[in-house]
Amino acid sequence: MNHETLTQILSQVAAGKLSVHSAKDKFEHLAFEDIGFANIDHHRSLRKGFPEVIFGQGKTPDQIIGILETMVNREEIILVTRISLEKAEKVMAKFPMAEYAVDARLLQIKIKEPKISGTGTILIISAGTSDIPVAREAALTAQAMGNRVETLFDVGVAGIHRLFAHQKSLTNASVIVVVAGMEGALPSVVGGMVGAPVIAVPTSIGYGTSFNGVAALLGMLNSCSSNIAVVNIDNGFGAGYMASSINHVSAGK
Amino acid sequence: MNHETLTQILSQVAAGKLSVHSAKDKFEHLAFEDIGFANIDHHRSLRKGFPEVIFGQGKTPDQIIGILETMVNREEIILVTRISLEKAEKVMAKFPMAEYAVDARLLQIKIKEPKISGTGTILIISAGTSDIPVAREAALTAQAMGNRVETLFDVGVAGIHRLFAHQKSLTNASVIVVVAGMEGALPSVVGGMVGAPVIAVPTSIGYGTSFNGVAALLGMLNSCSSNIAVVNIDNGFGAGYMASSINHVSAGK
Amino acid sequence: MNHETLTQILSQVAAGKLSVHSAKDKFEHLAFEDIGFANIDHHRSLRKGFPEVIFGQGKTPDQIIGILETMVNREEIILVTRISLEKAEKVMAKFPMAEYAVDARLLQIKIKEPKISGTGTILIISAGTSDIPVAREAALTAQAMGNRVETLFDVGVAGIHRLFAHQKSLTNASVIVVVAGMEGALPSVVGGMVGAPVIAVPTSIGYGTSFNGVAALLGMLNSCSSNIAVVNIDNGFGAGYMASSINHVSAGK
Amino acid sequence: MNHETLTQILSQVAAGKLSVHSAKDKFEHLAFEDIGFANIDHHRSLRKGFPEVIFGQGKTPDQIIGILETMVNREEIILVTRISLEKAEKVMAKFPMAEYAVDARLLQIKIKEPKISGTGTILIISAGTSDIPVAREAALTAQAMGNRVETLFDVGVAGIHRLFAHQKSLTNASVIVVVAGMEGALPSVVGGMVGAPVIAVPTSIGYGTSFNGVAALLGMLNSCSSNIAVVNIDNGFGAGYMASSINHVSAGK
Amino acid sequence: MNHETLTQILSQVAAGKLSVHSAKDKFEHLAFEDIGFANIDHHRSLRKGFPEVIFGQGKTPDQIIGILETMVNREEIILVTRISLEKAEKVMAKFPMAEYAVDARLLQIKIKEPKISGTGTILIISAGTSDIPVAREAALTAQAMGNRVETLFDVGVAGIHRLFAHQKSLTNASVIVVVAGMEGALPSVVGGMVGAPVIAVPTSIGYGTSFNGVAALLGMLNSCSSNIAVVNIDNGFGAGYMASSINHVSAGK
Amino acid sequence: MNHETLTQILSQVAAGKLSVHSAKDKFEHLAFEDIGFANIDHHRSLRKGFPEVIFGQGKTPDQIIGILETMVNREEIILVTRISLEKAEKVMAKFPMAEYAVDARLLQIKIKEPKISGTGTILIISAGTSDIPVAREAALTAQAMGNRVETLFDVGVAGIHRLFAHQKSLTNASVIVVVAGMEGALPSVVGGMVGAPVIAVPTSIGYGTSFNGVAALLGMLNSCSSNIAVVNIDNGFGAGYMASSINHVSAGK
Amino acid sequence: MNHETLTQILSQVAAGKLSVHSAKDKFEHLAFEDIGFANIDHHRSLRKGFPEVIFGQGKTPDQIIGILETMVNREEIILVTRISLEKAEKVMAKFPMAEYAVDARLLQIKIKEPKISGTGTILIISAGTSDIPVAREAALTAQAMGNRVETLFDVGVAGIHRLFAHQKSLTNASVIVVVAGMEGALPSVVGGMVGAPVIAVPTSIGYGTSFNGVAALLGMLNSCSSNIAVVNIDNGFGAGYMASSINHVSAGK
Amino acid sequence: MNHETLTQILSQVAAGKLSVHSAKDKFEHLAFEDIGFANIDHHRSLRKGFPEVIFGQGKTPDQIIGILETMVNREEIILVTRISLEKAEKVMAKFPMAEYAVDARLLQIKIKEPKISGTGTILIISAGTSDIPVAREAALTAQAMGNRVETLFDVGVAGIHRLFAHQKSLTNASVIVVVAGMEGALPSVVGGMVGAPVIAVPTSIGYGTSFNGVAALLGMLNSCSSNIAVVNIDNGFGAGYMASSINHVSAGK
Repeated sequence: MNHETLTQILSQVAAGKLSVHSAKDKFEHLAFEDIGFANIDHHRSLRKGFPEVIFGQGKTPDQIIGILETMVNREEIILVTRISLEKAEKVMAKFPMAEYAVDARLLQIKIKEPKISGTGTILIISAGTSDIPVAREAALTAQAMGNRVETLFDVGVAGIHRLFAHQKSLTNASVIVVVAGMEGALPSVVGGMVGAPVIAVPTSIGYGTSFNGVAALLGMLNSCSSNIAVVNIDNGFGAGYMASSINHVSAGK
Repeated sequence: MNHETLTQILSQVAAGKLSVHSAKDKFEHLAFEDIGFANIDHHRSLRKGFPEVIFGQGKTPDQIIGILETMVNREEIILVTRISLEKAEKVMAKFPMAEYAVDARLLQIKIKEPKISGTGTILIISAGTSDIPVAREAALTAQAMGNRVETLFDVGVAGIHRLFAHQKSLTNASVIVVVAGMEGALPSVVGGMVGAPVIAVPTSIGYGTSFNGVAALLGMLNSCSSNIAVVNIDNGFGAGYMASSINHVSAGK
Repeated sequence: MNHETLTQILSQVAAGKLSVHSAKDKFEHLAFEDIGFANIDHHRSLRKGFPEVIFGQGKTPDQIIGILETMVNREEIILVTRISLEKAEKVMAKFPMAEYAVDARLLQIKIKEPKISGTGTILIISAGTSDIPVAREAALTAQAMGNRVETLFDVGVAGIHRLFAHQKSLTNASVIVVVAGMEGALPSVVGGMVGAPVIAVPTSIGYGTSFNGVAALLGMLNSCSSNIAVVNIDNGFGAGYMASSINHVSAGK
Repeated sequence: MNHETLTQILSQVAAGKLSVHSAKDKFEHLAFEDIGFANIDHHRSLRKGFPEVIFGQGKTPDQIIGILETMVNREEIILVTRISLEKAEKVMAKFPMAEYAVDARLLQIKIKEPKISGTGTILIISAGTSDIPVAREAALTAQAMGNRVETLFDVGVAGIHRLFAHQKSLTNASVIVVVAGMEGALPSVVGGMVGAPVIAVPTSIGYGTSFNGVAALLGMLNSCSSNIAVVNIDNGFGAGYMASSINHVSAGK
Repeated sequence: MNHETLTQILSQVAAGKLSVHSAKDKFEHLAFEDIGFANIDHHRSLRKGFPEVIFGQGKTPDQIIGILETMVNREEIILVTRISLEKAEKVMAKFPMAEYAVDARLLQIKIKEPKISGTGTILIISAGTSDIPVAREAALTAQAMGNRVETLFDVGVAGIHRLFAHQKSLTNASVIVVVAGMEGALPSVVGGMVGAPVIAVPTSIGYGTSFNGVAALLGMLNSCSSNIAVVNIDNGFGAGYMASSINHVSAGK
Repeated sequence: MNHETLTQILSQVAAGKLSVHSAKDKFEHLAFEDIGFANIDHHRSLRKGFPEVIFGQGKTPDQIIGILETMVNREEIILVTRISLEKAEKVMAKFPMAEYAVDARLLQIKIKEPKISGTGTILIISAGTSDIPVAREAALTAQAMGNRVETLFDVGVAGIHRLFAHQKSLTNASVIVVVAGMEGALPSVVGGMVGAPVIAVPTSIGYGTSFNGVAALLGMLNSCSSNIAVVNIDNGFGAGYMASSINHVSAGK
Repeated sequence: MNHETLTQILSQVAAGKLSVHSAKDKFEHLAFEDIGFANIDHHRSLRKGFPEVIFGQGKTPDQIIGILETMVNREEIILVTRISLEKAEKVMAKFPMAEYAVDARLLQIKIKEPKISGTGTILIISAGTSDIPVAREAALTAQAMGNRVETLFDVGVAGIHRLFAHQKSLTNASVIVVVAGMEGALPSVVGGMVGAPVIAVPTSIGYGTSFNGVAALLGMLNSCSSNIAVVNIDNGFGAGYMASSINHVSAGK
Repeated sequence: MNHETLTQILSQVAAGKLSVHSAKDKFEHLAFEDIGFANIDHHRSLRKGFPEVIFGQGKTPDQIIGILETMVNREEIILVTRISLEKAEKVMAKFPMAEYAVDARLLQIKIKEPKISGTGTILIISAGTSDIPVAREAALTAQAMGNRVETLFDVGVAGIHRLFAHQKSLTNASVIVVVAGMEGALPSVVGGMVGAPVIAVPTSIGYGTSFNGVAALLGMLNSCSSNIAVVNIDNGFGAGYMASSINHVSAGK
């Protein structure tokens, strides 16, 4: 549910087309809906501008389908993150309009194609080729939330001239997401080149003392560039979401 | 040095008031200046919209003074972070216009009072009273960078009605900085209430398994709210800087 | 063996129906029984009010069956925790009255249905849908130990109004078990809303810096609410056991 | 503020002795009071049965005094935890009725001596002599909250017969708090001897691989006894609070 | 090779039955033998009283067979530790006299049955049933090295009377090996009951904060009993070896 | 691309055989080439003396093949590291001249056999047989980069006379790579015996508290010999690369 | 109290010189004595062959003196470990016969000079000069417990020929204690040279990644020599105690 | 002692000027000298080309003086590392020719000024001003060992054009030492720009999640540049030593 639906209901009440009692029932469902194994937060679109996103990991396909069924008539776009191909196939059998990105492990149901509502362009950079799946999760999320998105892959610090060649894209972006594993040094370099906010995403790419992304995470948290904030390891979704949130900050506030 | 200075020099050259040779000299100094123990990045104002900030920890008062001397005629505002009262007093003896905030351990030299250039209001929240010094560092930094700043202290999750009473401030903010120690749960609750981006700052307040802020950091990195990104433990400066960076994102990009 | 069995044996001796020698033999077995790979603690029902619970992980099906055989005629209810479906099926082939909860990985043999002996109601809350298996383990354990149990699932802090809608259940509970992964913030919020003791159970739900539940654990140990104590990660059984132990504290003591 | 105060105000309104407007004012202050650096939660006594406790660490003496001033006329007993002797002396200069326990670092202001309201006896055990300060903090807290408290010090597992000599105290207790550093093994042994709930408190006593209490904490979280839950390292206050919370669970709920 | 072989060779030289040149060749092989992927330390029996033991993990079956072939004619007993069933079967196809203990993952080739050479009895205790495989590895190792071995399984601290019932075995042992997972508390209790040296072996049995045996390890390293030393997690072999080494300390030295 | 190719292009321009426009095009490709999922750094041979090495882990076979296709006509030798047998087989189907070392997980395409260009001999030592795969990765890398390489396997500190027997090889080497798991003590001993630089490579061989190589890593970082520097756990490739880099340091610089 | 005292009391009873009632009183005190802040384990000499040792850290001088007063007439030798010079001076003012070793932070009260009762010689080795205080604590403890002790300092692995020069001392020792910080490699080398049991003591000597002794600890736990067991970091006392315990293992058992 | 001394002694023997017996005495002292608390390794100059370096931390001034006294007549240059100003002053009172660098905490006694023997130039770079003391320790060490040394301070990645301005120094160096705290990204960037070996030194500069240099260390170990190896945190001495060792690798080997 979004602001539109809300206005519509209230207008119907004002116009006498909907009884107060029926409206109250609708509103109670708007707040959240208890389906036993989940309390779905239908109020979230209204409060946060985007509906609840389903965290696929640790849920059964039946639970995911059950949640989707309560949402699909209320929302314009729904995301399921961290959903394996196997589970996604079961969900898509039920919801044939769903699209699944296998590298990003992201399933989307788009009732309406999202409109561009963000003010600038979000640039998503990956340090290596192996970091692309996480970068893609960020890109797809930001697009679903109504943002222009550009990507730039495999421009890590071991050959830093590759990055400098794209100086213009960097300077033009309103928000930059930098995805990097191993030593996670790329956000510091990018952050030093621009004034825009940088969202750093450590990935679990690496081995040994990368400790599944901890080395990259620590590198990013200790960056000597100050226009940087960090999300969880491999959290492409969160980075795309945060970037969208930033890209929607506007003078009106 | 900032865009204004740059335009000024170039105009002088164009007008024949400054030889090419002299301009080149000036530009070389603009890039950076080597004073033996430091290579000061004078180009930063131009590139990032704010001059290099001096990290006070681990530098001697003489080193800080030396760096300030190369900057004070080129910049409009200079910050020294993580500087102890003892060192600050030595610096202020040399630069009497400097202001020092003892709780935030922040020293500022303002040649010009910063103008409000950010589009909205930055709200800075602390979970507890003991977290205030870090929150203050964020607030002072954001103000120095040209932002409207509001603060709200001691509204942690153990008495969550205190937070809800300020719903309006939360909804109005363009960016929110949440400073919390111990379990670091407040950013998740705040993030769930608004659509704006939230910068979470873990603090080292706590004992035992707080591990000097690691518990709060992990709580924030694993937040179930998605409009959240995190900075280093006790990094009030970085949070204020990042919030300002976000508050300057505008439609022009 | 429980207090009833004990009284029965002693009465038989008093009535001359059982020789002292035979009684002594029985008592020796009561203390514990050595079956080679295990020393079963038959005295536990008497001492602690509930028989020894079998930790299924790391035991072979034959070992579990062997232990059950020494217990099944002495106890009224027996639990096997952390037992996989595969092992459980082998055990159930031998003990057809056994019931197995696949999500909670808990096998129960109920000779007698447990009577309600706890004084109040234990409320078991999960932050997310993915935390339900651990919550179920807690609920089944508490029920097996003679407690009234209520559950409330998927009411995490990212949409905190879902929790507030159940204020009455919270206020009525004598003990609350809160099961949460990721940042583990829910117990702090719940603990701040009630005076009853809260048992916090971190789960391994999450990824990256959740470190398999460590983030949630630390969040809970550092809670700013004080009516909280914590059990091991994913230890639904221990939480249910502890809650039952608390729910049996009575004025008599 | 507590239930008594609440009833009193409402009765005055009902009797026409207090205007609705004045009552509303009073209630607004009851919820919480903003004094700039703190939002004091006056509602807590009502909600949780005990007023907000002041965490002394990281607060200045002036902040503590400021908070106390808003509370001292509303509450019957106030605790300040983790307050150093030096700070406590400044506070006591202002509040001469305050009592300070130097080993437990606990300051109490008792307007009324607490009445025994808990149903049973709380037994507080320390493994070593060096663990006594933490055990004392637990004992004083539990007493302040209206409980009968017994203590038993220096009965660690290296000479376990010392513990067995006190079997009767163990069996009689409604709740047991066990305080231990080093390997933290005592709660397991105690938990195996009784059916009552055991609150385990790791202490930072030890050296090397005790890692300031982490070894003891892990030992307690992994206890093979199931009637055990754990609080933060050195958190005597929390243990006393939780024990009191348990000791107030009654049949009425 | 052992002292006997050495004496034999030297006697042959003295008796003129072996040329100096041939003896030199033999001795060179005694020091070690390079077979490309391994430098086998044939001198070890002489120096340490027991031949080199093959660490099976990370070696291919062919490598293990290759090493065994150089040893089998020189030594009286050979052990291969941490060898999987699958690898063991390949090795046994080549060396049919080999015996394999599947729970202890230990393969033995006994050319001669070991004689009892240790002075006392080694007692090997496990806290739980799940710890038995590690305890068995210790027992088999100690037997192979010429010691009398007794075992006592599943006598953990949650029912400590089971341990006390075996007081006599404890008092009689010259060395005690205690194998325990979870909180690892048993060695402290055992160490407090006897004067004999105790070798503590943490196991990876447990879950969550057991961190694969780290909790048990730390418990043992911080034991408040002082006649305890610790080996690596799950290192039953090392514990049996060390116990044998202790059991062979004699007045002669 | 290497110095030869560069000179060739420039000469063609000088000789009028290549237009400036075509040369510019070639040079732009020389810097790097964007193939969507990768920005291949063709400039690296020129800058660093060896072409970009492909990190196989986390890349699909198609991505590896795509990258190889852009490199195979420009370079004389190409390495793919950490590539599984399964992926390697797909790559070799496309590039039949590729050679794959299954233990070292290294794939090489040699257009030309590398010439010996390093000044001395690189000695590669493994502490155990299980460390050989990592040692082999180092050896193959160093050979590919134009170095004379000797190896010495299974000479760990538990039988240190095996090492001393090879004193001469140690003394002759210009650089030594020491590969060791478990306690990682061998580099200290080797470092103490020679003046040459030692590159220490911790391996993940071990169990329990080896923490997948962390124990060995820490041992090496804390070595009491000073001619030692360390690379990542299991990083045989990096050690071979670094050793080659050292072996190419010459008086000319 | 020791075996002698026990025999004496029992003989007096047998001889009618002591009433059963008086003997019972004496025995009750023998078990342990409760002096409020401590339960002194007087039974320990009987059970373990050496009286309770006082852990000085975290105890006040008054507590130490109080404990000593209950022991000084019952025992022949008393140790206080980890006692600072400042505390020791207060204790010595009360007990002038006490001796204090400032480097080892060990205070001893010898009523009788200990007789040599151990069967062989304990050799105590330190890797560096900085490790000597811990080695001295081990040596003094072992001497107090009736052992012949030899020491050998500063023979670390960076110059391993220094160790080999003392081969004879190594071969002659019945037990060896090896004290080492930094990488902790020395016990592996020593363990490889002898058949005797080796007690390894990590020290906190080092910096950076020594992590206050964790690097040395891990090195020792992962030793490729098997006749090694480990005690806590800087635990010289425990190593000396354990070594004595081993040196008293005799054929009688 | 060095090669010269050795040759001299042997020549005297050959010339009959020194008896075999006296020469043997001298050689025995050459190997090492036992002065009770230290076994000084006089053989090291011969074996490794540089005398034993004294690790000042944890040694008393008297111990340092004692060691120096045995060395000062045998060596040409002696270093004492990690020696505080306070200790250094006591040592200099005894050895007035000693020089002390207070920032590097390094004391040197130069009997002869070291000759340049290394083949190229060692370039030592620091990322920040606060990293200079560690960089200085590296520079002084490398100079003492006979190398040409250049330094370049405060060129961190947040303003990477400062580094590029010194491209020529980077390209000319035979070995580069890069000293960096915080995220430790600089060695990756430098390593990507040159073919020479890079020694990376993490420093403890930073706060919060820098974990006293662990973040920088992990960044360096996971570098995506391969010509990098790492030394311990703050180990400027080791880096200088290793760089010198590399700079002395020559074609002769």
